[in-house]
Amino acid sequence: MDRNQVSVKILSAKVARKMRWSEIAEKMGKSKEWTTAALLGQMSLDEHQAEIAQNLFSLTAEETAWLQIVPYKGSLPTAVPTDPLIYRWYEIVNVYGSTIKELIHEEFGDGIMSAIDFSMDITREPDPKGDRVKVLLSGKFLPYKSY
Amino acid sequence: MDRNQVSVKILSAKVARKMRWSEIAEKMGKSKEWTTAALLGQMSLDEHQAEIAQNLFSLTAEETAWLQIVPYKGSLPTAVPTDPLIYRWYEIVNVYGSTIKELIHEEFGDGIMSAIDFSMDITREPDPKGDRVKVLLSGKFLPYKSY
Amino acid sequence: MDRNQVSVKILSAKVARKMRWSEIAEKMGKSKEWTTAALLGQMSLDEHQAEIAQNLFSLTAEETAWLQIVPYKGSLPTAVPTDPLIYRWYEIVNVYGSTIKELIHEEFGDGIMSAIDFSMDITREPDPKGDRVKVLLSGKFLPYKSY
Amino acid sequence: MDRNQVSVKILSAKVARKMRWSEIAEKMGKSKEWTTAALLGQMSLDEHQAEIAQNLFSLTAEETAWLQIVPYKGSLPTAVPTDPLIYRWYEIVNVYGSTIKELIHEEFGDGIMSAIDFSMDITREPDPKGDRVKVLLSGKFLPYKSY
Amino acid sequence: MDRNQVSVKILSAKVARKMRWSEIAEKMGKSKEWTTAALLGQMSLDEHQAEIAQNLFSLTAEETAWLQIVPYKGSLPTAVPTDPLIYRWYEIVNVYGSTIKELIHEEFGDGIMSAIDFSMDITREPDPKGDRVKVLLSGKFLPYKSY
Amino acid sequence: MDRNQVSVKILSAKVARKMRWSEIAEKMGKSKEWTTAALLGQMSLDEHQAEIAQNLFSLTAEETAWLQIVPYKGSLPTAVPTDPLIYRWYEIVNVYGSTIKELIHEEFGDGIMSAIDFSMDITREPDPKGDRVKVLLSGKFLPYKSY
Amino acid sequence: MDRNQVSVKILSAKVARKMRWSEIAEKMGKSKEWTTAALLGQMSLDEHQAEIAQNLFSLTAEETAWLQIVPYKGSLPTAVPTDPLIYRWYEIVNVYGSTIKELIHEEFGDGIMSAIDFSMDITREPDPKGDRVKVLLSGKFLPYKSY
Amino acid sequence: MDRNQVSVKILSAKVARKMRWSEIAEKMGKSKEWTTAALLGQMSLDEHQAEIAQNLFSLTAEETAWLQIVPYKGSLPTAVPTDPLIYRWYEIVNVYGSTIKELIHEEFGDGIMSAIDFSMDITREPDPKGDRVKVLLSGKFLPYKSY
Amino acid sequence: MDRNQVSVKILSAKVARKMRWSEIAEKMGKSKEWTTAALLGQMSLDEHQAEIAQNLFSLTAEETAWLQIVPYKGSLPTAVPTDPLIYRWYEIVNVYGSTIKELIHEEFGDGIMSAIDFSMDITREPDPKGDRVKVLLSGKFLPYKSY
Amino acid sequence: MDRNQVSVKILSAKVARKMRWSEIAEKMGKSKEWTTAALLGQMSLDEHQAEIAQNLFSLTAEETAWLQIVPYKGSLPTAVPTDPLIYRWYEIVNVYGSTIKELIHEEFGDGIMSAIDFSMDITREPDPKGDRVKVLLSGKFLPYKSY
Repeated sequence: MDRNQVSVKILSAKVARKMRWSEIAEKMGKSKEWTTAALLGQMSLDEHQAEIAQNLFSLTAEETAWLQIVPYKGSLPTAVPTDPLIYRWYEIVNVYGSTIKELIHEEFGDGIMSAIDFSMDITREPDPKGDRVKVLLSGKFLPYKSY
Repeated sequence: MDRNQVSVKILSAKVARKMRWSEIAEKMGKSKEWTTAALLGQMSLDEHQAEIAQNLFSLTAEETAWLQIVPYKGSLPTAVPTDPLIYRWYEIVNVYGSTIKELIHEEFGDGIMSAIDFSMDITREPDPKGDRVKVLLSGKFLPYKSY
Repeated sequence: MDRNQVSVKILSAKVARKMRWSEIAEKMGKSKEWTTAALLGQMSLDEHQAEIAQNLFSLTAEETAWLQIVPYKGSLPTAVPTDPLIYRWYEIVNVYGSTIKELIHEEFGDGIMSAIDFSMDITREPDPKGDRVKVLLSGKFLPYKSY
Repeated sequence: MDRNQVSVKILSAKVARKMRWSEIAEKMGKSKEWTTAALLGQMSLDEHQAEIAQNLFSLTAEETAWLQIVPYKGSLPTAVPTDPLIYRWYEIVNVYGSTIKELIHEEFGDGIMSAIDFSMDITREPDPKGDRVKVLLSGKFLPYKSY
Repeated sequence: MDRNQVSVKILSAKVARKMRWSEIAEKMGKSKEWTTAALLGQMSLDEHQAEIAQNLFSLTAEETAWLQIVPYKGSLPTAVPTDPLIYRWYEIVNVYGSTIKELIHEEFGDGIMSAIDFSMDITREPDPKGDRVKVLLSGKFLPYKSY
Repeated sequence: MDRNQVSVKILSAKVARKMRWSEIAEKMGKSKEWTTAALLGQMSLDEHQAEIAQNLFSLTAEETAWLQIVPYKGSLPTAVPTDPLIYRWYEIVNVYGSTIKELIHEEFGDGIMSAIDFSMDITREPDPKGDRVKVLLSGKFLPYKSY
Repeated sequence: MDRNQVSVKILSAKVARKMRWSEIAEKMGKSKEWTTAALLGQMSLDEHQAEIAQNLFSLTAEETAWLQIVPYKGSLPTAVPTDPLIYRWYEIVNVYGSTIKELIHEEFGDGIMSAIDFSMDITREPDPKGDRVKVLLSGKFLPYKSY
Repeated sequence: MDRNQVSVKILSAKVARKMRWSEIAEKMGKSKEWTTAALLGQMSLDEHQAEIAQNLFSLTAEETAWLQIVPYKGSLPTAVPTDPLIYRWYEIVNVYGSTIKELIHEEFGDGIMSAIDFSMDITREPDPKGDRVKVLLSGKFLPYKSY
Repeated sequence: MDRNQVSVKILSAKVARKMRWSEIAEKMGKSKEWTTAALLGQMSLDEHQAEIAQNLFSLTAEETAWLQIVPYKGSLPTAVPTDPLIYRWYEIVNVYGSTIKELIHEEFGDGIMSAIDFSMDITREPDPKGDRVKVLLSGKFLPYKSY
Repeated sequence: MDRNQVSVKILSAKVARKMRWSEIAEKMGKSKEWTTAALLGQMSLDEHQAEIAQNLFSLTAEETAWLQIVPYKGSLPTAVPTDPLIYRWYEIVNVYGSTIKELIHEEFGDGIMSAIDFSMDITREPDPKGDRVKVLLSGKFLPYKSY
């Protein structure tokens, strides 16, 4: 058994029981973004969170133990994603990548925006010309220093 | 001559004259995100915008004409970016890709978040534990329809 | 269980029962293009459509639930397809790609032809020198805007 | 000198002189799709067509000779295109590839749709909800035969 | 079940029963080249041919049905083949590719040699310095036309 | 200077002077297949052949010396060729690769068909349904031996 | 069943029974290099050799038949090997590749060193500064000829 | 200027002056294998060796300085070499890789054969059935140790 | 059965029994770095070490035998790792690679830092601004020599 | 002009003037690791540091300006490095990658070792059995947090 098999089981149980990620997140007491990432095998749960998952998805003791192990991260099957929704994000990185780099460096100097000390919030933005997906990303700026 | 050579000339002029993207954007009357992307060869300028660029960077008439041609987009030299700042964005897509997909579909159904009818806003978020890069993405939701 | 296993089961049932996609589409009340894509795991079905599929292919309740989940799209095993029929389409994109780009931009300006607000119609065009495959693609033009 | 340099020179001349592909095609007496592909280095011109190009773009005798040589075809710099407009076409092949294969085989049997005995027609389809790009592809069906 | 599993079963039966491709082809009433390709999952059989295969390899009804479905073609596990015999063919394409292109265009003009309206014949050519593999390829020339 | 630059110069001279490969081959006293491959930088010429080339293409002494050096072979810019004519040959290797392997092994046992002790002959085969490209490949069989 | 499964079974039996390749080779009456390659699925055995293997590894009749089929060769899971011992060999080819090419051509002219009419002998070379791996490669030179 | 340009200049001078690697090596007082690798940009020369090269190839002072800098090694343009002579070596690694690994480990235990404390000797082995390329590789065995 | 399956079983047992690598290493009498690498299938154990593992993880006799076989090394599923923790190490190699090369050559001359005669020590470095991961790498310098 | 051209000029000047990185670093008042990385185009210099570089390498004003621009990082020409010294580091990441991940997570929990808030120190470790390269890496641990 490995962590991936636990993720597949969770996804399969979620489909069979017609649960929603936002409801699951509420039971976890965490944001829907973090909860979904964690249950899809990208984050590790603490003991309490793992027990909630155990009950929600009828997991065995070993499966529950796996949820507390740090997973090998990376949720895409190919380097360039084929799924159109995920590709659009890759496209944003590809088309705007050099722009993002220029503007963050202009404002903050040499360094990066952290993808670890990071949070994401996805919401619906009503719009008469068609609703929009609004995403707020927040990552700590980490400067390179000379030594 | 091709568009890429114009972008290199603009970047070189910007460095030599120590201009900032935000100042250039102000002169263009556009956001710094769009202006930077356009001058780095990812968007096309209208005649008026091209003239402003011509003056700012001492471009020839042919160079100015190229700015009004739609460029072949894509600003990264490799499919997986090597630059750490840009890689973190690729990493966000890689780690959170399946999460983003699940949550947008849960809220909106089958479809995508547009990367064309799209805007981006990058700002500094002061924080006593270290300032953060705050990014607001807004893309129209485009539903798949059956036919 | 995942969506892919449902697609394989459907394909296997279709072969064993010698059904045709056009007959299945008629029962679905949708075009043969959309129906085939959906059952091959590229589109999601609504509850009514899923029930029709359940009856046609003797699916279980969980399999039927999977058909209503948005799938991870992408129907080809390699980035460059090896199958000659599909390769010819890749070749058209490769040989005519820059032409398509030039002509759409000349007519519409900067933007794209949507692959989401999109439909396809494949028909036989009788021709004394050998019948032809006639394909009509229709995608909404989505303009880039400056902001 | 090679054919690619001739294509770059033509493109550069076209930009500097602000010509349109449809006007050039009219002078060639050919469709805008074929003319554009030919001048972008994907098709070969006959002597008469090459002379018209020579006049339009002020080509030398050797450059004009190159236009009559069959070029090494393929107009994209990477196997998966990064440009959003061209990528959408790749995405159509990726998402609908297995569907296209199933439906052409169902109608015609084993074989391919030719990308050589092939024509393309790109037009604007007015639509109150936003104009559409309408593309008509026509390729001869070529059957595999047993021997 | 998919077509690939049928091919594996056929190959396994052929090995266990020590049959030769040329004998199988004779029973099929087709060339050994076409028969081998078909049974390795690259061509589709008609009903009569499928029945012969059913008897030769003790296939089930569903397996026999799969043989009549057009397969997803492509018989190599990697883009550049690792097997030395098949690699030599790839090498011929790599070393002589530009030569083949030049000579076919010189003789026929712009177009291709069809890989669909195509046949192959592999024979032994006795030679005192070591027997040779003689291969005759015949493919219809398909011209590009301007439109 | 390297060999590649000599090949480009030869090709450029051939275009400017409107020579044909078959005429050049006749002057070389060799087949058109070998001659073309050699002048495209895939084979090395002896002193006499190099002198003929020197005269035909007005080469310098150093350029003529390069023609006698064994070149780094491989005439294609990408592992999977994008040019439709050359791709068809790659497709033949891809679709028929496992067939070719089975049939040569059945006839000759374990070993390969040489791509070195090898010749190729490309001719036009008149056919009322459309002329065909006929290619005769002949390669020595080289057996693996146990030791 | 395929040849690969037979190789895995042989390797597993060898581990469980703690056999050495040199002992197995002695029973085969062949060199340890050829024997190991053959049993790892890179060479084909004759009937007598296959029977010896059948007894040594308790193979079934079908498994024994597979050993006499020419395998699809290539023993590495990736194009650039990750295993350090095998990588060093790849590194030798990478670093010394152009050197090997220059020196063999200088001595023999245009052609190759055969990897088919080829043998390898790996021995221990005692050395006070640390024993060395001594490898003797012998491959027939095969000249390219003009035709 | 970089090291690569020096290598190209050396190769060009060698061709123009019709020198042989073995003669150059003799003047260097080193083996032809090491000398060739060094001058092709894979090894670094000491001051004395660099002066000899300076004289042989009429190098400038800066070019001579570059020869004493350790180069970025790797002499092949692609991960899988396209040149047939070099490919055969890659093929040996690919086909015999697992065999080499098994036999070295059986004799020496866990570790590698060094590609650094390494030498190579390429000679002609006369053989009535066709001369052979004989290569002697000698690399120190370096054991992995537990710690 | 192969070595990989043994590693998976060990990892699964470790998770189910909530053991720590440092405790396992203590029982092995080896460093935690070597022990972890060995049990994850990158190093081979001696008989005594294998017995300890057998007891700790309830392995069968064949599984225990596999631990003493030298494994095919390489612990990552893709050439560029997707896991953020491991990617940071790849990034260090990518960003600092040319620096490391320059500095080791400046100090030691031409050669490498061994990855075989090598040890690693990972410890926690307390720091008021946030604890640090401190890693000590030690590899023997192996010089290239001319011959 | 771009940053890369400045790096090449610096390297060329350093070779021509036979400077050492450690001497340059001393003049910069920074570690040799940071200084080398910066001058090879991986870090950005402040105004004072750039002036020192200007004097050392005779740079123009524009070249000096480029040194203060944040560069596009990544110092290797291929994803898997071919140079043996750099490859050994890639090998360490490949072989020990899963080990490093397990041990850092065991000690610190889920998170990464920073490659930004990071320093490196490369020194010679004298050893009677052959001197060793000793490398000390220190990176801040950055924990993932749930939100």
